[in-house]
Amino acid sequence: MRKPHITLTGITTTGTPHLGNYVGAIKPAILASKDEGQYFYFLADYHALIKTQDAERVHQSTREIAATWLALGLDTDKAVFYRQSDVPQIPELTWFLTCTAAKGLMNRAHAYKDAVQKNLDADQDPDFAVTMGLFSYPILMAADILVFNATHVPVGRDQIQHIEMARDIAQRFNHQYGKHFNIPEAVIGQEGSVLKGLDGRKMSKSYDNTIPLFLTEKKLQKHINKIKTNLLEPGEPKDTKDSALFEIWCAFADADQKTWMADEFANGIAWGQAKKELFALVNTELEEPRVRYMELLETPELIEQKLQEGGEKARVLAAPLLEKLRDAVGIRALG
Amino acid sequence: MRKPHITLTGITTTGTPHLGNYVGAIKPAILASKDEGQYFYFLADYHALIKTQDAERVHQSTREIAATWLALGLDTDKAVFYRQSDVPQIPELTWFLTCTAAKGLMNRAHAYKDAVQKNLDADQDPDFAVTMGLFSYPILMAADILVFNATHVPVGRDQIQHIEMARDIAQRFNHQYGKHFNIPEAVIGQEGSVLKGLDGRKMSKSYDNTIPLFLTEKKLQKHINKIKTNLLEPGEPKDTKDSALFEIWCAFADADQKTWMADEFANGIAWGQAKKELFALVNTELEEPRVRYMELLETPELIEQKLQEGGEKARVLAAPLLEKLRDAVGIRALG
Repeated sequence: MRKPHITLTGITTTGTPHLGNYVGAIKPAILASKDEGQYFYFLADYHALIKTQDAERVHQSTREIAATWLALGLDTDKAVFYRQSDVPQIPELTWFLTCTAAKGLMNRAHAYKDAVQKNLDADQDPDFAVTMGLFSYPILMAADILVFNATHVPVGRDQIQHIEMARDIAQRFNHQYGKHFNIPEAVIGQEGSVLKGLDGRKMSKSYDNTIPLFLTEKKLQKHINKIKTNLLEPGEPKDTKDSALFEIWCAFADADQKTWMADEFANGIAWGQAKKELFALVNTELEEPRVRYMELLETPELIEQKLQEGGEKARVLAAPLLEKLRDAVGIRALG
Repeated sequence: MRKPHITLTGITTTGTPHLGNYVGAIKPAILASKDEGQYFYFLADYHALIKTQDAERVHQSTREIAATWLALGLDTDKAVFYRQSDVPQIPELTWFLTCTAAKGLMNRAHAYKDAVQKNLDADQDPDFAVTMGLFSYPILMAADILVFNATHVPVGRDQIQHIEMARDIAQRFNHQYGKHFNIPEAVIGQEGSVLKGLDGRKMSKSYDNTIPLFLTEKKLQKHINKIKTNLLEPGEPKDTKDSALFEIWCAFADADQKTWMADEFANGIAWGQAKKELFALVNTELEEPRVRYMELLETPELIEQKLQEGGEKARVLAAPLLEKLRDAVGIRALG
């Protein structure tokens, strides 16, 4: 019998979910979790601390991301939905893995190398302003995965190295202490799942070009109106290629709707009209979850309760492996 | 009113306590803990994992070190005596500090620089066989200290850098998140507290020149007989300077006994006779605790119980600070 997949995804709690997150990660994850197998989705608040020292931002992002996943219908009876910081086995495993992980492996991490290159370009010390968080977070990430012996980790292309490093870290620990860990596999997301932002670049908080997922209708319309188009007049045929507007349309449309809009482009639909159509399409999909989202933000104790339940499940699931690992390294009761 | 001292000492669980540990660390620590102030003594089993992958060794060392301190009369009602791995706040704080600690600080740690130098001397990659445990343990050490806001940390001269790094790490965190930590002070041990081993070098497990603390009388005599002396015959005056035998004598003798043995050296005491005297002196001091030690090793559940009690105390004492720190970084209940 084939072993069921154990799939794990973490969301760093530094921002407000936007359409790109929804289309590229949240929607497919919630959909996938209805399949067989075990699913772990967690709020990566320990990772957030590497990126920001703004406590209010971490707190608010945690609330918004949790509310988003719940509002969109994540089945928390099936998927384990938890805060990373509610699972003490994760920092403990991080230390175990730290003791066996090679420093040389960390030296090769893209994020660290980028920081070093920037410093060198600026005639700075290579490690200027580099924290140990930035340097060693691949070990925390490995612990996130290995603590539940996840088999599959959906990632974007730019994150493949994280999984390669987690595999290396797992193999090294297994080599020294016996086969305790699955070697996890990266599941590479579809190219099309990365959405363009208002300015036509990849939608990303760091480009300040996002459309937040749960805006009021009025604000959603305003944001959609800001999507960059070109100077072609109504009646002039428009190219769907490289159009952020068309791309976002396709992320929400069914096959017929896609064809219809492609025809409209060819027929010279006015940009203003196209934006109205896009708003209507997106709004239809988000209308109901938006109500739930707003309700959840009004009742944060309900979100907290869900996370507490998920945290308890996560701890219970992680505990037996950590007991085995403690025994393997020599941390044992004396009596 | 002067704030009472909070003193903390960790013992890495990789070896069997020897006379050098006893004279240089254990005896003064147990004595000190009778003074006013708060004392934390812990079995540093997370640190042990950096030094060895031999689980049985870690386990056995934990048992022996715990039994040693208890047999020597540590008052566990006064001092908090615990296993590092029983305090989940330590790995969590380690992560918080990791996120703010500078990588450049770790680059300058003596242990890491020594490893790099050895690699360079051997024409190896600088980070060859360097684990992240070796590289980042100063952060764990800072967490050990800061989790109880210890004010004073007794160390040997070779460990002063660890406290300097802990101070740096504490200051940096305080700077970013507000003044949560005391800045701990190193308390430098007396020069004389480092004992010579059988071969005249510093007594150390790594030189294989130790006299284990709790040997049977017969084995203690045998070890003492192996202390390196010179070829001077009975009747020939002997120099107390650089004599390991005289040094160990002084570590156990009162003032009168020191004078007496110095006279005996001058008078040409036979080495064999001097060793018999040394055995008698050491044995007198260790006789009673040896019985308790052997009893404790026979009843490890009693040791475990003491450690459980200490672990509970440590967790209770650490919890309020960690709650404050979690709030400071933005990890907060939502409801």
